[in-house]
Amino acid sequence: MSHTVEILSVGTELLLGSIVNSDAQALSRELTGLGLNVLYHSVVGDNPGRLKAAVELARSRADVIVTTGGLGPTCDDLTKQTLAECFGKRLVFHPECAEDIRRFFARMGKEMTDNNLQQAYLPEGCTVLDNAWGTAPGCAFEADGTYVVMLPGPPSECLPMFRERALPWLARLSEGIIRSRTLRVFGLGESAVESLLRDRMNELINPTLAPYAKEGEVELRVTAKADTASEADALIAPVEAEVRALLGGLVYGADVSGLERVVLDGLRERGLTLGTAESCTGGLIAKRITDVPGSASVFKGGVVSYHCEVKAGVLGVSQALLDEKGAVCAEVAEQMAQGARKVLGCDVAVSATGVAGSDPDDRGNPVGLVFTALATPDGVWVKQLNLASQSARRDRTRNLAANHALDMVRRWIAGLDPAGMA
Amino acid sequence: MSHTVEILSVGTELLLGSIVNSDAQALSRELTGLGLNVLYHSVVGDNPGRLKAAVELARSRADVIVTTGGLGPTCDDLTKQTLAECFGKRLVFHPECAEDIRRFFARMGKEMTDNNLQQAYLPEGCTVLDNAWGTAPGCAFEADGTYVVMLPGPPSECLPMFRERALPWLARLSEGIIRSRTLRVFGLGESAVESLLRDRMNELINPTLAPYAKEGEVELRVTAKADTASEADALIAPVEAEVRALLGGLVYGADVSGLERVVLDGLRERGLTLGTAESCTGGLIAKRITDVPGSASVFKGGVVSYHCEVKAGVLGVSQALLDEKGAVCAEVAEQMAQGARKVLGCDVAVSATGVAGSDPDDRGNPVGLVFTALATPDGVWVKQLNLASQSARRDRTRNLAANHALDMVRRWIAGLDPAGMA
Repeated sequence: MSHTVEILSVGTELLLGSIVNSDAQALSRELTGLGLNVLYHSVVGDNPGRLKAAVELARSRADVIVTTGGLGPTCDDLTKQTLAECFGKRLVFHPECAEDIRRFFARMGKEMTDNNLQQAYLPEGCTVLDNAWGTAPGCAFEADGTYVVMLPGPPSECLPMFRERALPWLARLSEGIIRSRTLRVFGLGESAVESLLRDRMNELINPTLAPYAKEGEVELRVTAKADTASEADALIAPVEAEVRALLGGLVYGADVSGLERVVLDGLRERGLTLGTAESCTGGLIAKRITDVPGSASVFKGGVVSYHCEVKAGVLGVSQALLDEKGAVCAEVAEQMAQGARKVLGCDVAVSATGVAGSDPDDRGNPVGLVFTALATPDGVWVKQLNLASQSARRDRTRNLAANHALDMVRRWIAGLDPAGMA
Repeated sequence: MSHTVEILSVGTELLLGSIVNSDAQALSRELTGLGLNVLYHSVVGDNPGRLKAAVELARSRADVIVTTGGLGPTCDDLTKQTLAECFGKRLVFHPECAEDIRRFFARMGKEMTDNNLQQAYLPEGCTVLDNAWGTAPGCAFEADGTYVVMLPGPPSECLPMFRERALPWLARLSEGIIRSRTLRVFGLGESAVESLLRDRMNELINPTLAPYAKEGEVELRVTAKADTASEADALIAPVEAEVRALLGGLVYGADVSGLERVVLDGLRERGLTLGTAESCTGGLIAKRITDVPGSASVFKGGVVSYHCEVKAGVLGVSQALLDEKGAVCAEVAEQMAQGARKVLGCDVAVSATGVAGSDPDDRGNPVGLVFTALATPDGVWVKQLNLASQSARRDRTRNLAANHALDMVRRWIAGLDPAGMA
């Protein structure tokens, strides 16, 4: 029986919606990877009565409690006191923690106020999780069969504290191993993927196969539990092969962070460089490419030709064409991509032009009409997209357009028809 | 006594950490704005027993339950069935919902599979919240003194469904009105803002004044409760004036979505156009500008000059300068901004060049060293930034660099020293 976990986040700012609970997400991934079974997330405010009730509930329904938040120096920070009380422990002053806190302030060149020393009080007998990323140390203890880990709230502290400090302490609870592999699918909606795979998803127990819709794409996660990583991987492999056989070129990668990464890796392997020419996406494609560390070895640059003057003047799109057909047409997309190849001196360029706003453009082109093009040493391809949906959200339209542009490069690298859809 | 709320999110993907619970954040803001008191968030997986227990718990400790997720067409989608069971209601087929779902698929040009019709079964006697943003309708009902609202999980459906459909139904629960105004501050850290304002924040009860750190900036939220909106606004106004008097040019706007919006509005009023020249930010500045609807009337375009060839070839940065000093220096930033003004034909241009990666560049420039420049008809300014922090994250460095570049434009428009910091 694997251990069950509740992540209990403490902070009124979460309940007011001032911040999103990204700690719960990050810790869930980590704990699941450790083979623990996260059954509950809960959030309560900085209120001792409700926090105490939440702790009692958590210990009644999970055997591992991981708290986030409420370890800081202000009077709102109640987590340690409350947990200690629930588990019948005193708080004890840890001089070495006080020293760490003093050093942290010195290193940041800031003055330490006395209230910071409250952070050095921790439950008696606990394992101190010292905080190299902030001031509040965390702690871990076992009491009456419940394992408790307390972590600070700021995401820049919580996740490294978990990985570097809490994980070694929790490793003893891990029984067997859970491994998963995520196949990423572009070009088919979630319900279509699901209807193709429904029977297999229902049949499969170990590994399981589950779809997750992401904006404009679908993730298929194959998750296996076994005694060792290699046994788990051996369970996953045939299911992965089965999905790939069924979906073919629509599967663009496994355990990859996105289309931009696959495109960069593919071009790098072939020694090719990339450039962009963007109108409606306004820099988003270049931004997504340069989000990836190491993109500089492939990506030379881009032109955001938001106005037609820039399309003509910088990218060399024909002014006569712009006058005649406007900016949103297949020929302009092609000339943008070809222009980018030339101006930026890159091997491969993609472009996007279309209507991302909430109203048709002045030539009556509908919202969501987008052309993406790919220019390569082999030739030029263009794709016409209708990305309209009832919600017609600007960011969604732009993101889908960027996905399609990147997917054209991915398909070209893979030897598929760049403008094709299967 | 104001009503108390629990947000209950249903979905194993949340517990696995596949997605972050952004619905809970968005709904918390909305519910708080309505004067309701959000006391708990909880998350359970797609498991009927645990979901049922969570519903029973929620009704015992809150009088409004808002669920997200689990309304879709697959067999995992258990929310309606379970809630109906907990509150002793049958599920009834709603033909008009089935019609909506059919129409949705037709509009998207997709084929509807039969399982989608499951979404048309809703608890008897409920108010149907029809979904114009997806397929699964929501619903709302009151039973035994508990108010229940069920919303779909995808964030692109959940928030508009709340605002357009659930809010009118919930408005009856709102007592008095809560209004808030958010002052946005750039150029001073949260702890500095807090130490300047701590005494006032502690004194103020209605309105309250609270700081929220956002990446690279601070929001100061003034929140008042009153019988009417105008009474609440009258409570807020003097506190806003006090903060503005104290922080001066560091307050860049109130209730605005970000620096890019302020910059676009300011330039539009003056009839000026904008362009960008980006190296380390890789298109992020242009992307942020074009995220704003209507940006096309101001933003002409940008050049992402990731490689030096593009800096020299497209923007006209001196090759001798690049050879001598490399890409990361004040002069290159200046020439990039000046080049962008010329090449793009815009009145004002900003640039950014620096080291955003996780390692120093090949000239030994440290991570986080960034130069931003502003070129205008009045002259050129440049700012040297050290954006390194203990956890040098690429996205953080890039985002801060973009903020500083945009803030230079904002300060120039406001008549402040563009390269100044107060």
